[in-house]
Amino acid sequence: MKIILVGATGTIGSQVYAELIKKHEVVTAGSKTGMIQVDIQNPESIQKMYDSVGAFDALVSAAGQVHFGEFDQMRSIDFELGLQNKLMGQVNLVRLGLKTIRPGGSFTLVSGILADDPIVQGVSASMVNGALHSFVKAAAIELHGGIRINVVSPGLVEESVDKYASLFRGHVAVPMQKVVSAFIKSIEGAQTGQVLRVY
Amino acid sequence: MKIILVGATGTIGSQVYAELIKKHEVVTAGSKTGMIQVDIQNPESIQKMYDSVGAFDALVSAAGQVHFGEFDQMRSIDFELGLQNKLMGQVNLVRLGLKTIRPGGSFTLVSGILADDPIVQGVSASMVNGALHSFVKAAAIELHGGIRINVVSPGLVEESVDKYASLFRGHVAVPMQKVVSAFIKSIEGAQTGQVLRVY
Repeated sequence: MKIILVGATGTIGSQVYAELIKKHEVVTAGSKTGMIQVDIQNPESIQKMYDSVGAFDALVSAAGQVHFGEFDQMRSIDFELGLQNKLMGQVNLVRLGLKTIRPGGSFTLVSGILADDPIVQGVSASMVNGALHSFVKAAAIELHGGIRINVVSPGLVEESVDKYASLFRGHVAVPMQKVVSAFIKSIEGAQTGQVLRVY
Repeated sequence: MKIILVGATGTIGSQVYAELIKKHEVVTAGSKTGMIQVDIQNPESIQKMYDSVGAFDALVSAAGQVHFGEFDQMRSIDFELGLQNKLMGQVNLVRLGLKTIRPGGSFTLVSGILADDPIVQGVSASMVNGALHSFVKAAAIELHGGIRINVVSPGLVEESVDKYASLFRGHVAVPMQKVVSAFIKSIEGAQTGQVLRVY
């Protein structure tokens, strides 16, 4: 398969890359690194990426930013980051990828446990992840030609404990291999419209 | 209780109003009708509403617009309506209401069944409703002084069947009284962080 991986150098993306490259042709993309630079917040930048790649079999996203902060201190602009980057950035990866994805291809997005299990300072992340869960269920019933879409919702991964443990008190970290497996299940499996929770 | 009801003349809002007015002081607000005009898409307009009302015990929203359309025909601006109106409009009603809500007060928002059970042309509604479900869970753990927040997620109400039945094929319409009861449960009950599904 020819697979586009957005966010290929991130904590999760780099491990998904290491697994995918064993069996597939992987085109890496990222905001600063990768074979192709893409700003997912900018639909023109996404379109340019798809134009340069041509036909492909899978789009995998391990990308998306949100702002963490106390709810009563959050400003409109803080919410906009999550809505325009992690949410609409990934929605636009799907929307604009529909033109060049091959029949039977798949989209795999990333959300996160905060959709279901919130933390203090995580209100924007929760909102965006919940939106992605329902988006994937809804988009799945409007895709034709056997095209599939799923979202992987990881818990706090063991590799991120040092950075995020103070925010995620009491969360049980999940092994990266389980998260990578969920991506593989979405890409090489046959399910669609699913939220693949790795908690 | 002194209750602000946004969207008081809508299909659902008007029935919620009829029930609330039996026992409470109700300040009605709407984009075109009501005692106070408010554009929920504009934070300054929301702030002006709160300034004119003063201290209150409950904010109830039965308002919010989204665009319905085939997923592959949706433009960025079509998604923005749902994100800025039904989603951030309601989030900002909460965010800005925190300054003048009385201790023990409550916020009650509205989402909808498409978060869980999608229809063709409903991808934006699904996304926004799913975002509201996770937002309410997350915001609930950051509210202090006994302030509560819930969201009512109605199915297609019987009163909307004539207008929406062609989109909601196979959906079983729910009686309005059940939807109104869910609002009352949120306002006069003691739960918080709940999605009150009326399906």
